[in-house]
Amino acid sequence: MAPLEADGARPPSSGKRPATTPGSLAGFESLEQLLKEYVPSDKLEEALRVLHGSKSGKPVSELPLSEEVLSSAEKQDFDIQAYQFSAAAEQLRAPRVVRVGVVQNAIVLPTTAPYAKQRQAIFNRVKSIVEAAGAASVKILCLQEAWPMPFAFCTREREWSEFAESAETGPSTRFCQDLARKHNMVLVSPILERDEAHGGTIWNTAVVIGNNGNVIGKHRKNHIPRVGDFNESTYYLEGNTGHPVFETAFGKIAINICYGRHHPLNWMGFGLNGAEIVFNPSATVGELSEPMWSVEARNAAIANTYFVAAINRVGTETFPNAFTSGDGKGAHKDFGHFYGSSYFAGPDASRTPSLSRCRDGLMIADMDLNLCQQVKDKWGFRLTARYEMYAKLLSEYVKPDFVPQVIKDPSL
Amino acid sequence: MAPLEADGARPPSSGKRPATTPGSLAGFESLEQLLKEYVPSDKLEEALRVLHGSKSGKPVSELPLSEEVLSSAEKQDFDIQAYQFSAAAEQLRAPRVVRVGVVQNAIVLPTTAPYAKQRQAIFNRVKSIVEAAGAASVKILCLQEAWPMPFAFCTREREWSEFAESAETGPSTRFCQDLARKHNMVLVSPILERDEAHGGTIWNTAVVIGNNGNVIGKHRKNHIPRVGDFNESTYYLEGNTGHPVFETAFGKIAINICYGRHHPLNWMGFGLNGAEIVFNPSATVGELSEPMWSVEARNAAIANTYFVAAINRVGTETFPNAFTSGDGKGAHKDFGHFYGSSYFAGPDASRTPSLSRCRDGLMIADMDLNLCQQVKDKWGFRLTARYEMYAKLLSEYVKPDFVPQVIKDPSL
Repeated sequence: MAPLEADGARPPSSGKRPATTPGSLAGFESLEQLLKEYVPSDKLEEALRVLHGSKSGKPVSELPLSEEVLSSAEKQDFDIQAYQFSAAAEQLRAPRVVRVGVVQNAIVLPTTAPYAKQRQAIFNRVKSIVEAAGAASVKILCLQEAWPMPFAFCTREREWSEFAESAETGPSTRFCQDLARKHNMVLVSPILERDEAHGGTIWNTAVVIGNNGNVIGKHRKNHIPRVGDFNESTYYLEGNTGHPVFETAFGKIAINICYGRHHPLNWMGFGLNGAEIVFNPSATVGELSEPMWSVEARNAAIANTYFVAAINRVGTETFPNAFTSGDGKGAHKDFGHFYGSSYFAGPDASRTPSLSRCRDGLMIADMDLNLCQQVKDKWGFRLTARYEMYAKLLSEYVKPDFVPQVIKDPSL
Repeated sequence: MAPLEADGARPPSSGKRPATTPGSLAGFESLEQLLKEYVPSDKLEEALRVLHGSKSGKPVSELPLSEEVLSSAEKQDFDIQAYQFSAAAEQLRAPRVVRVGVVQNAIVLPTTAPYAKQRQAIFNRVKSIVEAAGAASVKILCLQEAWPMPFAFCTREREWSEFAESAETGPSTRFCQDLARKHNMVLVSPILERDEAHGGTIWNTAVVIGNNGNVIGKHRKNHIPRVGDFNESTYYLEGNTGHPVFETAFGKIAINICYGRHHPLNWMGFGLNGAEIVFNPSATVGELSEPMWSVEARNAAIANTYFVAAINRVGTETFPNAFTSGDGKGAHKDFGHFYGSSYFAGPDASRTPSLSRCRDGLMIADMDLNLCQQVKDKWGFRLTARYEMYAKLLSEYVKPDFVPQVIKDPSL
């Protein structure tokens, strides 16, 4: 993780990715890197405990990786980081440690290149990162939102719908199935789905592929952003798959796609259904959301007592035609800088540092899934949640004649 | 805000407070102070944007205070900080700027002193801080949880119940009424309530006193902690007042008391009823919760599109008899160090720095309440929330025969 050049330019890379790094990244790849560079070590430890610590007072520890994996990452110019969350040993149950990974990546070819070539170039790039994850024995791996394509929804142009494909038999699914079998790995593949059984309707969907290469199922994005004039419902509407939890060979997982991270009820739904790890594949840019990024997924891990993986794509994607989108500015050709910064958060309030704000990356973490029940038993959030009260409140709230509970100062 | 001594001892103070500062505070009073001391200014700005920034890319700005107020804080040895949140000017509505304050304070006399003297000493100390708030023209001020007493619930001893008092006519309420009238200020006073109309039952209650000195109403803590063997339900059970929003002369406010901050549904309840500012008066110690502190209240501000004030007491309180409480250690005489760190968070993901981790403090902020609707209209969380789906999900979940939505890998 070399510091950025003073002008914020990204270091030369082996790929031909058009992604650029704006000067506003102001010379640091991640907040943790900045702290480590400047804060004296005796104060740094306490600062990291306050920022990232677990209840035990220790931040997550680093997980050693093999020379092979590290040199592969260096050669192919992607950030790689690995950590382990700790859990207590239990007397009546063995540990359930699973190695989990997430991938963040820029697109490779310009958005003006033929679509088939754009997709194939992304396949090649992602394959090299997934292979490194496989070599590091990752057992559950999640890719970023709409990973086989540029994040073109900001343009509101119809032609990008061509990237939509079948969740069950499309090229991205076949690509992932091969890798899942090869590495005995569960793969979560967020794509643009074409639903041929329902007139070719498009969905924003995560496909869950089991370690035997079979499609276990899929989940469709529950909450669709309409932020300023950025409106994904041009392409797809709210998902109709509920809050499924996928019971894989390595643990119970769920996927909260992108904008659903702003909705605590969505996180709750996956928790009520028993998720132990919830992935949040996203595509979000600095000016819109960077100050929220470290807050929302981590809060979900704490409130729902499960592990969360927050994944954001990286780089700036330039489109042929100018558009307005979300930021109140005049028409321009890019949505903003996707700031990466993927991370894991634990149910005990601990979290890992972030991946780079400007480079592709693979983050790996060992999680003992027993930690979820341990923290539930200690902190008692389920025990004390009073769900009946909220079932009633929401049932009242959705009525058109709902009257809010307001006590007005009678002396006014 | 002088840096702590190397041994972590608190600087000499004008009061006689027994609160001590453990060495584990490791030499910084707040994270923001630490960053400002060590990170170069060109990188600091971007770091603070990522940590605390609003969507506009600017953190909250400092609010100048009068010499009188500043010298009062210095003379009386409490931290004072003031900020302003910004909102856009609107064409059809005037700004609604309100000056809001929160107080964090240590107890003054040892817990072995006569109760009347303990309470009077706290009254005197808090009065001096409230007077400073009044001099600074604060219009809504919230005190910390159970402010007129030591936080004795960790002991599970019955005699501390003596501190309970009537919400309508008790000494704390009378104390606040005088100050509210004098300063034309709304005061939120979280106390231990004795409910004489129901057999002297005890509640953990926030009393809302209007700027004319009348009691507008009260709210009882909705979620009662049972964390490890720390169990407040020895004294009081879950509140029966719903999620009231109090419409005061200066804005619509609500109170999420302490442990309720871990429950996103509790935050949601106040939001559904229209709160513009939610206070979270708390009493929580470093080993249990410090890494969660900057996450939960701030997430609530973002998710519910209102302002939040997070308030924690400060200092270490030593009790006559040893007890076990929450941390898995052997019996000991204190619950841990209350780390202060009170702060405000805005609906646009911005937040203020924190008050000191070891000193009494007053934090003030100017908030244009129009910002709530502005951010709601831009980000659309209410529009996209799908409350009907969650009303159904929760209604199903609370049934004893609820079956979670789990899709098991059929190949296993």
